[in-house]
Amino acid sequence: MSILIKQAMIMTMNDNDAPFMGDIRVEGDRIVEIATHITSQPGDEVIHGKDMLAMPGLINAHQHSPMSLLRGFSDDLKLMDWLDRKMLPAEANMTPEDIYWGAQLSHAEMIRSGTTAYADMYVHMNEIAEAVTLTGIRASLTRGMVFMEDDGGRRLQEAIDLVQRWSGKAEGRITTMYGPHSPYTCAPEPLRDVITMAEKENVPIHIHLAETREEVIKIQERYGVTPTEYLKNLGMFEQAHVLLAHAVHLDRQDVERLKGMRGGVSHNPVSNLKLGCGIAPITEMMAQGIQVGLGTDGAGSATTVDMFEEIKAATWLQKLDYGDPTRLPAGKVLQMATRGSAGLLNLEEQVGVLEVGRKADIILIDLSKPHLQPVHNLESLVAYSVNGADVDTTIVNGEILMRGRQLLTIDEEILFHEARTRAKRIVEGI
Amino acid sequence: MSILIKQAMIMTMNDNDAPFMGDIRVEGDRIVEIATHITSQPGDEVIHGKDMLAMPGLINAHQHSPMSLLRGFSDDLKLMDWLDRKMLPAEANMTPEDIYWGAQLSHAEMIRSGTTAYADMYVHMNEIAEAVTLTGIRASLTRGMVFMEDDGGRRLQEAIDLVQRWSGKAEGRITTMYGPHSPYTCAPEPLRDVITMAEKENVPIHIHLAETREEVIKIQERYGVTPTEYLKNLGMFEQAHVLLAHAVHLDRQDVERLKGMRGGVSHNPVSNLKLGCGIAPITEMMAQGIQVGLGTDGAGSATTVDMFEEIKAATWLQKLDYGDPTRLPAGKVLQMATRGSAGLLNLEEQVGVLEVGRKADIILIDLSKPHLQPVHNLESLVAYSVNGADVDTTIVNGEILMRGRQLLTIDEEILFHEARTRAKRIVEGI
Repeated sequence: MSILIKQAMIMTMNDNDAPFMGDIRVEGDRIVEIATHITSQPGDEVIHGKDMLAMPGLINAHQHSPMSLLRGFSDDLKLMDWLDRKMLPAEANMTPEDIYWGAQLSHAEMIRSGTTAYADMYVHMNEIAEAVTLTGIRASLTRGMVFMEDDGGRRLQEAIDLVQRWSGKAEGRITTMYGPHSPYTCAPEPLRDVITMAEKENVPIHIHLAETREEVIKIQERYGVTPTEYLKNLGMFEQAHVLLAHAVHLDRQDVERLKGMRGGVSHNPVSNLKLGCGIAPITEMMAQGIQVGLGTDGAGSATTVDMFEEIKAATWLQKLDYGDPTRLPAGKVLQMATRGSAGLLNLEEQVGVLEVGRKADIILIDLSKPHLQPVHNLESLVAYSVNGADVDTTIVNGEILMRGRQLLTIDEEILFHEARTRAKRIVEGI
Repeated sequence: MSILIKQAMIMTMNDNDAPFMGDIRVEGDRIVEIATHITSQPGDEVIHGKDMLAMPGLINAHQHSPMSLLRGFSDDLKLMDWLDRKMLPAEANMTPEDIYWGAQLSHAEMIRSGTTAYADMYVHMNEIAEAVTLTGIRASLTRGMVFMEDDGGRRLQEAIDLVQRWSGKAEGRITTMYGPHSPYTCAPEPLRDVITMAEKENVPIHIHLAETREEVIKIQERYGVTPTEYLKNLGMFEQAHVLLAHAVHLDRQDVERLKGMRGGVSHNPVSNLKLGCGIAPITEMMAQGIQVGLGTDGAGSATTVDMFEEIKAATWLQKLDYGDPTRLPAGKVLQMATRGSAGLLNLEEQVGVLEVGRKADIILIDLSKPHLQPVHNLESLVAYSVNGADVDTTIVNGEILMRGRQLLTIDEEILFHEARTRAKRIVEGI
């Protein structure tokens, strides 16, 4: 299959590329040509780009996709009430089938709001992989592992099964990581074992880090170190590619400890704000050369998984934190949401930039809206005014998943029915 | 004309009203009936509410509508660069006709994103009033007055003309205020004169207050008091209804000084974030019984004037400021954006709540979207997940201004052409 996007404004997200009017040709799963004019060939599906901005799809570096079923179920609560009284009891009621439909609901929302790839950490990953296969999104899948009691190796075995069974599947859209949940839920020994496996097999690690102040206190009490130091001492940042989620409560030395790491940090500002966690020191991280991307966290905390909300929140918070409106300007935050997150997913050579030879993960934003006119500066518009509903067309791996706001791989009527019925059953009695 | 909304979820924003499925009937400019079932009458325009949430239109309590023409023109700059190098030179190039089209562009964006009333402070108010007349939005109009040099009374005369000519016009949709710009641009004598006029004529006042730390320093140097104290000492909070915009840099005593005032504070979090100004102490204000509403400020700073962004930003910031996710919960922030802002516009008896006898300013939000399913809690969905593009229908004063996302009073093709051409000319050479 081949696609020709004609006469769109193109924002490649490569450094030094100014936006320009041009054409993009896709063959199979890749971008094969970008130029001011490309002649269409027989069989090309032509997409006219009038009033459209073409840019790389956004990449959500931290998600728990099935939590979409718990959207709005437990807002405005203290973190521990949110977790213990609402999320954990509800999640205990979720069946593998619920997880399949919850993932599909998240995929529908992400595709509609211009996200073309994401990192997911959850359980029942076979069901999520099936949903990825169906919906056409690109995903880095991780079986989250809590090591608090002896489970006979069940969680670890499921993680190994995921990596062995699903890596490279769904036309190459699925990649996998190992997912020890967090410093406070993983004792040193099993954590060291996972690091060793990850290094040996060259599989990346996806882990939560220092989301709350409570976690810092807990790890200090247990081990006499910061959470970052705890992971560092176990050797996590030596060879493995590591995707760190949150990293809110890092002191200056912690930031130093991450210097030179492979992978980097997923900043999830909306979830951090909604749970009252704080502002991650991403400016300091970037100053140390640490790669920073953007994620939403699950809809259980973030409510929506629209990455354009994260883009706004990320830049607002840096400006607030420093009392300086020049912090994290539009172009930089858009790089975080595309190239930055691509790097975290270990896909920096594949996606995140519109470039010949890369995978065709492209979104078209419809600029013929009052809030996107006039156009003085495209980066400013995209960072500060676009929202997910402005995305007209979403292409992943050379396949059109949405066109003219119509989803092509997902039946929303069936999906909403399943989501409503299942969500109701899950929270009954909680 | 009469309208019957059938079988929508209705969120009245009255205390103690839980959302319920029902019908709303509008005759002329007013809501005449709200019930679980209303029989349609001949001539009723029937709107089916399947999957729709009906709620009061949002009210934007602080705007400079023509600045939509400068959207994205000067982001990521220091405040003084933003103002002196970009905004002021651009505004100096704006003709009365530009202001008409800029206002219309803002109205289009506001109607599309569910805002039914707003407060505007700018110049060339005749042109803005003409735009209000055409587009059908409800507006409180203010001629902004800087009293820095002797202008022979021109600004004040224009303000008086606006009040005399336009109050109550456009089927009653236009109201007016007096608008001394701010403590730092208005000397005591002219300010006192305006207060006296406002009291005598019972016209409200709309003024900026303590947006930046620099303003606090400047007023302290000039008069040895805080900006709030400066206004208080001039008698501003004695009798007049006052709409204070921003109120970011208020200390505890300043908040005390506002206790018992008529009117209240427009919190404009997105603009405050983008310009690096800080977080207004709205929790303390509300604890003192001071009315707080929400506004966007102009698109020159906020980029977009989508009030759903302000709703999210407002609640996020309070949670962040106190490290407490229970602060400013969904229901409260929605009240701020409706009833709170209505109070600031001196329209608390007219709009802000769905109730028989009130003006018919109603929006319908389409919930059949992946990011709005499943529905566990409507208030949470509206506060944390809805964005402006989810508004399907906007009704102001009993007139349908948008239905099925189609604007009925504005020709967007002509509007975008005018906006592009004029914006280009305005910034040329800056």
